[in-house]
Amino acid sequence: MTTAISPTTLALEESPQDQTPLPSWNEGATKQSILNFVRGVTTPGDARLVKPEERIAVFDNDGTLWSEQPMAFQFAFGVDRLKAMAPQHPEWKDQQPYAAVLQGDMKTFAAGGMRAIIELVMTTHAGMTTDEFSSIVHDWLTSARHPRFDRPYTEVIFQPMLEVLAYLRANGFKTFIVSGGGVEFMRVWMEKVYGIPPEQVVGSSIVTKFEMVAGVPVLTRLPKVDFIDDHEGKPVGIDMHIGRRPIAAFGNSDGDLPMLQWAAIGPGSRFGLLVHHTDSVREYAYERSSLGSLDKALTEAEARGWTVVDMKQDWNRIYPFEGSK
Amino acid sequence: MTTAISPTTLALEESPQDQTPLPSWNEGATKQSILNFVRGVTTPGDARLVKPEERIAVFDNDGTLWSEQPMAFQFAFGVDRLKAMAPQHPEWKDQQPYAAVLQGDMKTFAAGGMRAIIELVMTTHAGMTTDEFSSIVHDWLTSARHPRFDRPYTEVIFQPMLEVLAYLRANGFKTFIVSGGGVEFMRVWMEKVYGIPPEQVVGSSIVTKFEMVAGVPVLTRLPKVDFIDDHEGKPVGIDMHIGRRPIAAFGNSDGDLPMLQWAAIGPGSRFGLLVHHTDSVREYAYERSSLGSLDKALTEAEARGWTVVDMKQDWNRIYPFEGSK
Repeated sequence: MTTAISPTTLALEESPQDQTPLPSWNEGATKQSILNFVRGVTTPGDARLVKPEERIAVFDNDGTLWSEQPMAFQFAFGVDRLKAMAPQHPEWKDQQPYAAVLQGDMKTFAAGGMRAIIELVMTTHAGMTTDEFSSIVHDWLTSARHPRFDRPYTEVIFQPMLEVLAYLRANGFKTFIVSGGGVEFMRVWMEKVYGIPPEQVVGSSIVTKFEMVAGVPVLTRLPKVDFIDDHEGKPVGIDMHIGRRPIAAFGNSDGDLPMLQWAAIGPGSRFGLLVHHTDSVREYAYERSSLGSLDKALTEAEARGWTVVDMKQDWNRIYPFEGSK
Repeated sequence: MTTAISPTTLALEESPQDQTPLPSWNEGATKQSILNFVRGVTTPGDARLVKPEERIAVFDNDGTLWSEQPMAFQFAFGVDRLKAMAPQHPEWKDQQPYAAVLQGDMKTFAAGGMRAIIELVMTTHAGMTTDEFSSIVHDWLTSARHPRFDRPYTEVIFQPMLEVLAYLRANGFKTFIVSGGGVEFMRVWMEKVYGIPPEQVVGSSIVTKFEMVAGVPVLTRLPKVDFIDDHEGKPVGIDMHIGRRPIAAFGNSDGDLPMLQWAAIGPGSRFGLLVHHTDSVREYAYERSSLGSLDKALTEAEARGWTVVDMKQDWNRIYPFEGSK
C-alpha cells in the first residue's frame, strides 16, 4: 500500500532537537508539571528515578491527541463508508439506523442508542479481511476532509501533544495509545502520524477468524464485539496488552478516569493529565461531547493533583498546520 | 518484589558479542537456513531486505523455548498451587478433579478432559489481584525444581534458542512470545530469562475486572476464560496484540501451525521453524505430548520448505547449565 498520510513527521521531529522542549506550551504551571515529572524520573541519583523499561506512558486518542468535533472522526469514517456502500443496499432507505445516517438525521440515529452505533460499526467495519479493512481506512484518510478545517483528519491533531510524545520518547519512555477507538482503524495511520507502532496501540476490537483459503492465510473480521477499551476497560486493556502499570497517563474525559487512576495512583513518581477543551476559537470548547463528559475526571484531578490543560491558556499553537506564535 | 529468577542473563548476553553467531548450533543446513534468512532481510541492497520496524519474529514457548516434559511447566505450577491451597479445602479429598491431582492420579485427571483442566486453572489462577498472582508465580519459580534436572524451571530452557533470540535482536528484530500459556504467568519471568518485555508477550488470558477499593486501584482475576492463544487463536492473538504480520515464526507442534502459516506464507522473505524433540538422552524424544501432536505441522513444513530442527543432530548444547562442547 502506498502511503500518502499527512506530513506530520516534520512536526514530530522538531522537538527532540530543540533546546527548549515543548515549544507550543506556554510557560506556566502546566508545562512545568510535565518537565518536573520527566526530569524526576530520568535524573540519575534522584529519588524519583524510574528504570527505562518501566517508563510507560499511555495516551487516549479522541480529544487528547486529535480533535473529536463535530463528531468522533472514526464515526465520520463510518458515515462515509455507509454512504459508499448504500448503492448496493437500496433497502437501507427505509431501514434504521441506516436511513437516519444516510439522511444526516443524527437525532434519529442518536435515539437508537448503543444498539444503533453497534449496528453501524458492524456494517461498516466487519465482513472483510484485515488487509481489506486497512486499505479502506487508508483510502478514506487520504480523501476525507475535516468539515471545518478542510484538512485530512490526520492533520487535525494537537501539536503540543506531539511534542509531549517526542519529549517522553527522547527521555526513554515507551508511548502507547489506549483508546476506545477501533484498534485496526488506528493502527493504519498512527505510526506515521504519532510515531507509535501498531504493537503499541491498544483499542476496542471485533472478533477475527483465521482460515486458510485456497492455500492463502486470511484473517476475516466478524460482526461481533470482542473488547470495548473504554472506562473500566482501559486498565483491563492496559493489563492485557502492556502487562505493566504505566507511570503516566493522558486523557480528556470520564472514559479515561479508570486509566488515570490505574496509572497515576500508586507508589513512586506518577503523572496524570487531562486536556480540557476551552478554546472555542481555535478548536472547540465543551464539557460534554458525544464521547462522554468530564465532570468526574476533573473533580478527581483536582483532588489528586493531576495536571489539567486549559487549552486556551496553555497552548500557543493547536495544530501543526498553524504557524507557531 | 525482589527477584531471584535464574542467572540466564549471562547465557543471553554471550552471543551478540560472539564472532560466530549461534555457537550451540552445529554446522549444517539447519543453522545455515537461519543465517541466510537473517542476512537476506538485513543486508542493504539485497532484494530480500525488510525495514527494521517490520522485522517481527514470534516464538511459541512450551517445547520451543523451554522443555515441556514430563508435563507442561505451568501445569506443574497449577498442581503445586493446588497442593498449597488444599489444607484450606478439605472437601477436595472427595471432589474431582481435585482429588485426582492431589493424589497424583493423572489418568483420572486426564479423563476429565478440557473441563477438568479449566477447573484446575480457574481454582489456581483466579480469585486474586494481578499483583498477588505475580507474587505467587514468582515465589513458585524461585522454589520449585524440575523433577529430572533438579533445577528451577526457568533454567530448563534451550540455549540454542536463546542464541536465536539474541541474534535476531542484534539484527533489528523485535521478538515476541505467542504461546498458549497464561499471559500473566509468563510475563513474571520472561523479561529476565528471555529478554522479552511483558508488552511483547502474547498468551491465553482470563477476564480481569478493574475496581477502586478504598481509594486503591485494583485488577482482580475472575474465573472466566477470556482468550485461548492456541491453534487458530495464535494468528488472532498476533493480530490483536502486534497488529503486524510477523516475517518469522518458531514453534514445535500442530498448535503452532496456524501461526507459522500466518507468518511464513506470504510475499517477501519469510521464515518458519519447527523444533523436533529427537533427543531422549539430553532432553526428550516425542511426537505427541500432552500439549498436542506434530504430524500436520511436520508435513506442511516439508511441503513449504520450513526449517525443522533435529534436536539431537543440530544442537551441541541443550541447556545453559550444560557445558558447551
